[in-house]
Amino acid sequence: MTQKILVLPGDGIGPEITAQASRILAACQARGLDVEIEEGLLGGGAYDAHGEPLPAETLEKARAARGILLGAVGGPKWDTIEDLAKRPEKGLLGLRKELGLFGNLRPAITYPQLAEASSLKRELVAGLDIMIVRELTGGIYFGQPRGIEERDGQRVGFNTYVYSESEIERIGRVAFELAQKRGRKLCSVDKANVLEATILWREVMERLAPEYPDVELSHMYVDNAAMQLVREPKQFDVVVTGNMFGDILSDAAAMLTGSIGMLPSASLNESGQGMYEPCHGSAPDIAGQNVANPLATILSVAMMLRYSLDAPALAAQIEEAVGKVLDEGLRTADIASGGTRTVSTSEMGDAVLAAF
Amino acid sequence: MTQKILVLPGDGIGPEITAQASRILAACQARGLDVEIEEGLLGGGAYDAHGEPLPAETLEKARAARGILLGAVGGPKWDTIEDLAKRPEKGLLGLRKELGLFGNLRPAITYPQLAEASSLKRELVAGLDIMIVRELTGGIYFGQPRGIEERDGQRVGFNTYVYSESEIERIGRVAFELAQKRGRKLCSVDKANVLEATILWREVMERLAPEYPDVELSHMYVDNAAMQLVREPKQFDVVVTGNMFGDILSDAAAMLTGSIGMLPSASLNESGQGMYEPCHGSAPDIAGQNVANPLATILSVAMMLRYSLDAPALAAQIEEAVGKVLDEGLRTADIASGGTRTVSTSEMGDAVLAAF
Ligand SMILES: CC(C)[C@H](C(=O)O)[C@@H](O)C(=O)O
Ligand SMILES: CC(C)[C@H](C(=O)O)[C@@H](O)C(=O)O
Repeated sequence: MTQKILVLPGDGIGPEITAQASRILAACQARGLDVEIEEGLLGGGAYDAHGEPLPAETLEKARAARGILLGAVGGPKWDTIEDLAKRPEKGLLGLRKELGLFGNLRPAITYPQLAEASSLKRELVAGLDIMIVRELTGGIYFGQPRGIEERDGQRVGFNTYVYSESEIERIGRVAFELAQKRGRKLCSVDKANVLEATILWREVMERLAPEYPDVELSHMYVDNAAMQLVREPKQFDVVVTGNMFGDILSDAAAMLTGSIGMLPSASLNESGQGMYEPCHGSAPDIAGQNVANPLATILSVAMMLRYSLDAPALAAQIEEAVGKVLDEGLRTADIASGGTRTVSTSEMGDAVLAAF
Repeated sequence: MTQKILVLPGDGIGPEITAQASRILAACQARGLDVEIEEGLLGGGAYDAHGEPLPAETLEKARAARGILLGAVGGPKWDTIEDLAKRPEKGLLGLRKELGLFGNLRPAITYPQLAEASSLKRELVAGLDIMIVRELTGGIYFGQPRGIEERDGQRVGFNTYVYSESEIERIGRVAFELAQKRGRKLCSVDKANVLEATILWREVMERLAPEYPDVELSHMYVDNAAMQLVREPKQFDVVVTGNMFGDILSDAAAMLTGSIGMLPSASLNESGQGMYEPCHGSAPDIAGQNVANPLATILSVAMMLRYSLDAPALAAQIEEAVGKVLDEGLRTADIASGGTRTVSTSEMGDAVLAAF
């Protein structure tokens, strides 16, 4: 059966990088991948066109799609929209919530060809391969009550950090199962010495552990986890944590690989439907210049093939093609260094296609 | 008038490191510092003795003291106490709250003698000097409602992230004033694209800015701040943020200097009364072995002299003594490297005293 894919270019460099990834998708079709590809609007561009960051039409297309490929959303142009609900980011958050994409997989991998690019000493990051599993549809991002209101003569801003047992269990299972297929070590990150919500988190992780006897579960406070990521990232295999901590830690981990322009991510729901996007943002400062790195988006296509479209062989071929291009010494500006050849966004796309 | 100082050795390595810092305090007395020094119990040891991590007697002594020197609290021995309110950490949180110590100053400095010890490349951390200003008595650490309760047939854990305008303004002023005395750059960290509580935060910071025209205010989302700290820490001068984000970012920043065993901190209230403690924790794994690094605690005494006791000259003398000892090549195990001489906790204390 033909499956649907929705491409959401988004804002900033989004259109340029998804254009290259779409060429790879088309090449997969030519090799027999049975998909139908559509495009849609999300974020700032959607707001400009429809007054909504997540137009009903996009949501409808998204529901029908097995896989969604997103570039990135947001930019200074929309940071001043008074109504928070209309900001580009809310389009992204809305899509996550509406589709129930609770399981966010954020690999932090150092490409051997790029280990020099890390701000960390080479030996600390060479061969690094962490998977951060972030809960994506709960926690303080969506908790009620929230708002800004007058209390005792002054304004007060408030949000609610909340997790139920079933929400914790569901993301815990994703993480345990991933750990089983990897290094069999799972580190759950919380702040159980201060926050009740994360005491429950720790308890549920402990309760799940006996069902996965081959996985070694440990716990770490979030402040310590931030330190340990900086100090010795290779101690981690799979990390599981809530929405807010996951936002912070996954970005820190991605950055310390030195390869953030290379890192894809997946956001999955219970049925395996998923949204795939690069870890980096919309980079408005370099938008439209044909210099952005399309590799994280191309690798997001590979993740989509693996996790939503059951096409692991094609996924591996894309990953190999990217590896070959790096071996040949081609680099976009963000990962360029002495002895490599700097290429444009579209030249990088050409090269990956040629190597595919 | 004689001022009171309260020393709270605490748990783990706390007693060893505060013992060395107390010798320096005594040496300051000998040089004319008019203080009376008491000791008290806090944390796990207090729980063992009195069933409370913050006994009434300690709180009373703390209220009477101008400066409090804390070692560290907590350890695995007390991690299993069922009642969260009795855990060592709650003693520390209680003291912060009771004394209104809302202004937490956490310097992240790379000592030139120790730049090699960082996991980051030398050029990225040499000369690093950031001051992280963390709000310490509000936010999600203290917000109500909080707890774990049954809802719709399952348990739910919840906490409240809340800040009022006056709380934000007060910590904002501390940060702006510090920035004026330093590099005149202030970066306020929030998650204003998602959390209403931090939209108010950003708004109040903006409102204060015109009163400090010599300070350049910028804003950064917390996920980006975590990345930028790893990527290029020297871009920061003063950083101001809430309790939870400050916990995470200040620890990450401290660790990336490579000198976390060297970093003091101050927690101040409106009247200049303050608690001073090393940034590192209670390190139960090396407790009682006379190998811990006492320098962060000794430098906490210097911070106390500067911020609470109005004795900046003595503070500078302590800091110089520490610098001399490092120049001589003495190191505790945590900061040892090729070509240096590893000394014990008490030998390090001897050396600083001799250089003082
Ligand atoms: C754009 C923003 C709302 C989003 C988040 O915080 O989840 C982004 O930082 C991410 O990590 O995908
Ligand atoms: C011990 C703990 C409660 C504390 C905190 O989170 O504030 C510590 O991590 C700190 O940063 O001083």
